[in-house]
Amino acid sequence: MSVFDGHEADGKSAEEIEADAALFGPLASSVRSLIDATVLTDSEPADIERAQALITEATALLNRRRMPGPFGVKWNADGSRRSWGNAVVGLRNPIAPPLKVHHHDGLAWAEAEIGAPYEGPPGLVHGGVVALLLDQVLGAAADHAGVPGMTGTLTIRYRKGTRLGPLRVEGRVDRVEGVKTFAVGQVLTGDGMCAEAEGVFVLPKEVRELAEKLGQQR
Amino acid sequence: MSVFDGHEADGKSAEEIEADAALFGPLASSVRSLIDATVLTDSEPADIERAQALITEATALLNRRRMPGPFGVKWNADGSRRSWGNAVVGLRNPIAPPLKVHHHDGLAWAEAEIGAPYEGPPGLVHGGVVALLLDQVLGAAADHAGVPGMTGTLTIRYRKGTRLGPLRVEGRVDRVEGVKTFAVGQVLTGDGMCAEAEGVFVLPKEVRELAEKLGQQR
Repeated sequence: MSVFDGHEADGKSAEEIEADAALFGPLASSVRSLIDATVLTDSEPADIERAQALITEATALLNRRRMPGPFGVKWNADGSRRSWGNAVVGLRNPIAPPLKVHHHDGLAWAEAEIGAPYEGPPGLVHGGVVALLLDQVLGAAADHAGVPGMTGTLTIRYRKGTRLGPLRVEGRVDRVEGVKTFAVGQVLTGDGMCAEAEGVFVLPKEVRELAEKLGQQR
Repeated sequence: MSVFDGHEADGKSAEEIEADAALFGPLASSVRSLIDATVLTDSEPADIERAQALITEATALLNRRRMPGPFGVKWNADGSRRSWGNAVVGLRNPIAPPLKVHHHDGLAWAEAEIGAPYEGPPGLVHGGVVALLLDQVLGAAADHAGVPGMTGTLTIRYRKGTRLGPLRVEGRVDRVEGVKTFAVGQVLTGDGMCAEAEGVFVLPKEVRELAEKLGQQR
């Protein structure tokens, strides 16, 4: 398997994609609320057992027909992409907050409410979740700047605990050296800057070659 | 709020904890299956809408009574801890695979099936999820060695894409320098070593002081 498998051009029209989003977005959102409730519930055992039976029933309905593999990245008819399965930004992935990354003047940024399901030390966002969010936003900054890549190295410096709740993640490209894109970023809360990151992103050779090929076909 | 808030001694007996685990473990497990189904479903819209209604009903049951804050870490009567809300190892956190970390001869290790909900690049584990798993296992190694801490710095070097599926995470303490514990580790799949990590863990001053205080009381 190449890292470029799963980049499928499923040729859906804008209307079809909108209909899919209206179906899968609210579904994933309802599962996010369920995850939060699962972490925090203190209900009576009978309620919890009843909830579990409903969850199992819902899962069976969703499993009636499944995609053959992970969601991957789908190319839309207009050349844009859907990363709906992505663990950080995926519209239909309940594990994803989901982060919505914006771009302005070279800065990639996202704001999100990171609650109890992302806990590490008591009351704080898991250090690894901080890394996860930064990896995504730094990668998005590299992508948006036209120098995308897969993460080669990621370094996070934790300056203080990142409290659960609203936070902001920022990233931007610092410099490009050959096939390497160096991006930097940070996580901020009401307490100020909590973590800094540097990421080195490198596009795999096979993807560079395929991108060139696709570019020639247009 | 201090980072030590949430370390509650709820004084539950071993039997009560066992009963809780038998209730919340299967609940979280059922939500994990639902998350997977949500990412991969290709069912008819009517089935998806019905599933969503069931999920909303389940969530309402679980929200009948909620804990006042995130789960944190509970101290058991025997002095051991429950990190059931933790994003990586939490028994009752559906976002957690959950990783079960074992310790042998200085090595902390865990094996898990990391599926579609953890996807980043198509077919591959999200680079940030790789960081998340490593952060947890390196921290567990430091903890088990008696030199615990919160993550100060985490560096991940990605050697190749980490394919979705079964993987192994390893960590061990490399050295201790004053209040800093240096841990190293790696992620392995059938493709071999996919990522290496170094983490520096530091126990916050207030936790060191409280630990000393608790030690004196025993």
